[in-house]
Order: sequence, then structure tokens, then C-alpha cells
Amino acid sequence: MKIIRGGVTAPLGFKANGIYCGIKKSKKRDLTLVYSEKPCDAAGVFTTNKVQASCVVVNKEHLRDSKAQAVIANSGNANCMTGESGFENTRTMAQSVARFLKIKKNNVLVASTGVIGKPLPIKKIIGAIPELVRGLNPKGGEYAAAGILTTDRMIKEMAMEFKVGRRRVRVGAIAKGAGMIHPQMELAGPKPATAGRHATMLCFVTTDAVIAPSALREALDRAAQKTFNTITIDGDMSTNDMVLVLANGMAQNKRIVEKTKEARTFAKVLEAIFSELAKQMIKDAEGATKFVEITVRKALNRDDARTVARTVARSSLVKCALFGCDPNWGRIAAAVGYSDAHVDPWRMQIHLGRELVLRNGGRVKKKAVLLNRIFAQKKIKITIDLGLGKYSATSYTCDFSTNYVRINSAYRT
Amino acid sequence: MKIIRGGVTAPLGFKANGIYCGIKKSKKRDLTLVYSEKPCDAAGVFTTNKVQASCVVVNKEHLRDSKAQAVIANSGNANCMTGESGFENTRTMAQSVARFLKIKKNNVLVASTGVIGKPLPIKKIIGAIPELVRGLNPKGGEYAAAGILTTDRMIKEMAMEFKVGRRRVRVGAIAKGAGMIHPQMELAGPKPATAGRHATMLCFVTTDAVIAPSALREALDRAAQKTFNTITIDGDMSTNDMVLVLANGMAQNKRIVEKTKEARTFAKVLEAIFSELAKQMIKDAEGATKFVEITVRKALNRDDARTVARTVARSSLVKCALFGCDPNWGRIAAAVGYSDAHVDPWRMQIHLGRELVLRNGGRVKKKAVLLNRIFAQKKIKITIDLGLGKYSATSYTCDFSTNYVRINSAYRT
Repeated sequence: MKIIRGGVTAPLGFKANGIYCGIKKSKKRDLTLVYSEKPCDAAGVFTTNKVQASCVVVNKEHLRDSKAQAVIANSGNANCMTGESGFENTRTMAQSVARFLKIKKNNVLVASTGVIGKPLPIKKIIGAIPELVRGLNPKGGEYAAAGILTTDRMIKEMAMEFKVGRRRVRVGAIAKGAGMIHPQMELAGPKPATAGRHATMLCFVTTDAVIAPSALREALDRAAQKTFNTITIDGDMSTNDMVLVLANGMAQNKRIVEKTKEARTFAKVLEAIFSELAKQMIKDAEGATKFVEITVRKALNRDDARTVARTVARSSLVKCALFGCDPNWGRIAAAVGYSDAHVDPWRMQIHLGRELVLRNGGRVKKKAVLLNRIFAQKKIKITIDLGLGKYSATSYTCDFSTNYVRINSAYRT
Repeated sequence: MKIIRGGVTAPLGFKANGIYCGIKKSKKRDLTLVYSEKPCDAAGVFTTNKVQASCVVVNKEHLRDSKAQAVIANSGNANCMTGESGFENTRTMAQSVARFLKIKKNNVLVASTGVIGKPLPIKKIIGAIPELVRGLNPKGGEYAAAGILTTDRMIKEMAMEFKVGRRRVRVGAIAKGAGMIHPQMELAGPKPATAGRHATMLCFVTTDAVIAPSALREALDRAAQKTFNTITIDGDMSTNDMVLVLANGMAQNKRIVEKTKEARTFAKVLEAIFSELAKQMIKDAEGATKFVEITVRKALNRDDARTVARTVARSSLVKCALFGCDPNWGRIAAAVGYSDAHVDPWRMQIHLGRELVLRNGGRVKKKAVLLNRIFAQKKIKITIDLGLGKYSATSYTCDFSTNYVRINSAYRT
């Protein structure tokens, strides 16, 4: 497997576009369309917030047959907590796209991101759909990536290629997310969720692979759990998080089925792409000045490993210390202690970068200048060894800056 | 019952003092002693963080007989994650105080607050104990209140008086807490905890009541659950939180026993004092510019009510919106949705101040200027009606300011 250029239009048979339809005050692109020439096998994972945007609810219905052919997404408005009319607007978006593309409306998926509780300016969206569809282009991936951004400063896309037999198969993706990021998504549809429950983060994945829906779903869920569901920016889970995957089969490879080497390779490709996009979200996080990797080792079980990594990643005090370049590992220890995991303070070890700072319930004395230097870096690694079992997990996060507060105290007004 | 002047030295037979012993760079008071002329019945609730400061562990041992006569506390150092020597230092503090006061060392309770992971400067503390004891004074409550402060700007104390028969009984308290505040404390000792599990917040309570230890414990636990355990400043639970109560019986009232009118009155007095001190913590919270009261109504059960109130109170995005005077109630709805409680978005209602903004899954349109005015106030009330049951809870919190980040990114260095 290797990285190739592009995003959602890298796989065969996909076209995309992104335009400005009138939602964003900045007049940047705010409407995106991704379209496959052929109907696709499709799957999605969605936020587990109990307050769900209408697009989340409608997509779950539309994915009941595991089929889709297009994704329309707007930015600048989450269309969440907008009553019955919010649901009508989501359905109208799908219907309008379906009519212009001459496809089934059930095969159109919808995503929204932005302010919660404000009615969607549906007329602007509907009015722009003809232009959006006319502009569909096999090189339109970047425009599509731009159309879903909110407070993001950069577009996020990636594509990879691997071989199934002699056939080359491509997977491409675009994503957004810079705030309200603490995802815990789970599968929708016939099969129950395997794990999970918590951004607005959006990610749309396209592939020309021929793959069984069950293999597609399993690969998606596994990859999302190990990547997006481990990151946190502000600890606030969104009402609109989703990852959608569309597979159109145009690579004409031998069908990938569950529990085969090819299925594992496909899952690894998804995971590699998600991992890179998740890291891009953290790097582009609102106000962030640091990229922080928190690894937990020797946890009693997998849930504990994840819980500890994310609890530390979410701690306001740890994040402020990171912003201030203050190697105050006591705040890390406190966060480990208030997580829901099994913790024995006497067995816990903490490394800042490569420096062991906590062992046997007390500090390992290090020169302040050494620790300060580690915390002054832009990329910081923190390792927490629980000394209780054999499970590991990694969470990615950022620091908490005065700029984060500024961005989020002035976001809507 | 009525409010009287003073704090821990308001009840009969209590003396206190607070001095500078050399821990704080600011050279402010950092060592406090509260002492009762007579041995007391005593009880405590402690942090449920799995990483516990040595003072927490040692106090639980010392409270096994439900007796105490003095509390020594230092600020500027948490003596947590300081290995075996940390425990020795806590015991040395108790022992040294016991020797100078000529009381049993098991009857001395210890508290520490400040940086985690740094060895306690025990020589400075021990060296200062003679002066500390010499200065014990029936008017020393304010000095004692000052000696436990860290980032607090104001001392926090309160006292009340009520009657048992013809006898006047007094209760006094001092407290500290401005950051690392998300307490969930539970009782230590023979009786299992009734609820709870999560600041450094410290609170020392004195009373001259004659009260049965069981009634004292029940009143303490109940009052702490309803007050301190509902507040949050930054969502970080401390390793050192504790509330200690000492009852010396010098009021010579008819003994207060469990499940009587007098026990209920005593519990109400504790609750009133804790409620006021908890509010003082929020008002003095690091960087805070607003005092926010979040009330949840009609929850399916009591835990749900508390969970929703605290989840909203903890949300970084809600707190940034409060700082920015931005009535972005969508963030409130999202936080309700990701809480662990039962939530039906179609039944939920949200009021900002007295203004209903969410009903039937969508907004109730209000003039922007009206909502902006509510969010521009220094005191803000948010009410969330879940429409599912009959349980209520209130949580107090503050906004998240650029100053909070500044204080906590430069706290240690």
C-alpha cells in the first residue's frame, strides 16, 4: 500500500465539487457534493450523542440497504435542534440532489456542520444545487474538501492505493474538524455496534474496491475506533459526527470478503488514512500550538487503556500546562487517578518524552531545564505505564490556549 | 438558625492560627492549625481520585475511631505522588503537632494543597510548628482561613448558630478552592459511602454541638453531596479534596442523634454553610468573570439530574460561550446529549435566564438583543428541563476565560 495524490476523487468513477451557496459570512465554500458514477455499497459510523442532527438520523435510514451514490454536505449550520422543519430540510437536500443527478433519493447521504439550533437556509442550498451538480469533476476533490470546513484553516484529504491480486484499488478521503471534537462514533444499521459511544468531525471516504458490505462495515468501525474515536480537542462531543464510506467496485478486483488477508489490508489502509486525518485535525485544532501524543501501556484491559489516554488528553489543567510549556506531570497523575480505569499509583510510571518522571509513587528527579525543553517542543509525547496488564492505547490531543478561548467565545457573534 | 460572624473559631472552645512557614514564594501564610480544647467527635469526606495524597490516606486511618482534636494544613505543596517519604512527612506533621499540643497523634488530621509531585519541605513546616501553636487564638479563624489558600484571592469562611432546646449551638467553617475543582468526595470510615465519587478543595468545619458520630457523618455526607460535589471549575478532580468536621460538645446541648428534628436542623445548617462556601469558590474561581447556576429539572432519576447539570457545567464550549457573552444554547443542548443521562431531545426544554429558547426539538425565536443581555450579566441562570421524570439538581460553575488559561499555564513556573 502506498500514498497517492488527491482525496475523494482519487478512486475511479468519483466526481466532486464544492461551492459557496450563501451560508458562510466569510463567503468561503460551504456546500460540497461527492458523487459516484455507479451506485455504491456504503456504510457509516455516527455520533453517539443523544441529541442528533437530522442528517445523522436521515443517513441511518438511507443506509438501511447499505447503498449510496452521493453525499451532499453543508458547512456553517449544523441543522440540529431545528425541530421537524430541520428534518424536512435534510430530506429536501437529499431529494433535490437525487433529482438533478437522476439517482434514488435514498442513495443520497447528507451532512451538516456549524452552529446548532439555527434554521438551515434551505433555499440558498436548493438554489445552488444545479451549479453544484454541473461543476462535478473528477478533479474536484479539493473543492469538496474546502466546502465542509468551519473553523479549520486547512483542507484535510488523503488517498492510498493497494493491490488485490493484480488489480490496483484506491481509497480516498476528505475530513473536517477543529473544534467540538471528542468523537465516539458507532455503526448504524443492521449489525449492532461493536464498541464505542462519543466531534463535529466529518469524514467522507470513497473507494473503487469491490468489497462485501459486511467487510466494509467491519473495516470502517475498527478503523474509526482506533483513530477518530481516540482524539479530543475540547472534550465536547458533537451532535453531527459521521464517517461515511462509499465503495463503487470500479477497480474490478476480486471481491474482498470478511476475515481474509485482503479485508485486513483494506482495514489497514482505512486506518492509515483515518490516523493521518485525525492527526491533521489535531494539528489544525482551534488555537492549538502543540501536537500531543498520549500513550497508555500495561493497562488491565483495552477500555482502561483508552479511558486513561483520553481522560488525560481531555484534562484542562494538563492542556494549560502544555500551552505554558510547564512539565507539571502531577496534573497528569491526577487525571489518571480520576479516570474510570483501574489505577494503582504505586505501580504507575510517567514518561515525558523519553524522561521517566514518576516511579514507585514518587518523582524521579530530573533537571528542570531538561523537562522544560521537552515541554517547549511543538510535538510532545507522554507515556503512562499503568503496570497492571498488557493493553495499550494512544490518544492525540492539543494544548489549551488563550486563543482557543478567544475563538470559542466569539465564534457565533 | 442564623448567620453569625467568624469562621472556625466561632464555636466555643476552638482556637486557630495561620502563619508563613516558607513554602510559598509569595511569602503569604501557608500553614494553618485548628485546635479544640477538648477532644472531638469527627468525620471526613475525601476525594475519590485513585491517586490520593498521603494526607487523605493518613486521615482515613486517624478517623477510624471517629475522634480528632486538631487539623494542621499547609498550602503550596500537595504532598501527593511523593513516595514513601511523603507519607512519613504527613505522619511527622501530625506527630509534631501532637507533641506541642500534648494530644494523641491519632487525633491530629492533616491537609495539604498545592503542586503535586514535589517533595514537601518538611523541615520548614516542623520548624514553624512551635510558633504556629503559640499563636493559637480564639480569634485566629481568619489567619487559619488565609493559611490554606493557593490561587484563591479571598478567604472563605462562614459560621451559623441554631438552638437545640434552650442551648445555642454554633457551626463554623473555612474553605479554599479556586482551581482543580470538580469534587466528588465520599465518607471514609466504618460506614460505606452513600453516594458520590469526585477539587483541591479543602473545608474544615468546627462545631460545639453535642452530636452522635453517626448523625455527624450522615449530615456531612448529605451536605457535601448536595453542595461541593455539584460544583465544577475545570473538570479536574483533585487528589487532595477533603471536608473535615470536628464536634467538641462544649455547647452542652441535648445530644443530637440520627433521624431527629435536631439532626435535620444540624444537616440543614451544614448544607447552608457548604452551599455558601461552594458559591464563594466559584466566585473566586481562577480567571472567572461569571457565576453560573445550572439547574436540571424533570430528570428520570437523581443521578441523571446531577450528571446533566455537571456535564453542561463542565463543557469547555459552553464555558467559552459564557465568557464571550454568546447565548449559544446549541452547545448546552449538545452537552446534555453527550451526558450519560436519559435524554429525549424532543422533550427537552432550555431556558436562558427566564427566556425559553428550546422546545419541541427546535428553537423558540427570541430577539438576539434580549438573549445577549442575559449572557452579558455577571450572574447567569440556565435551566434544562428534561421532561422525563421528577428529579432536580443544581450545579454551580463559572466561565472559561483567557485568564484561566494564563493562570494555569504559568502556575508552577
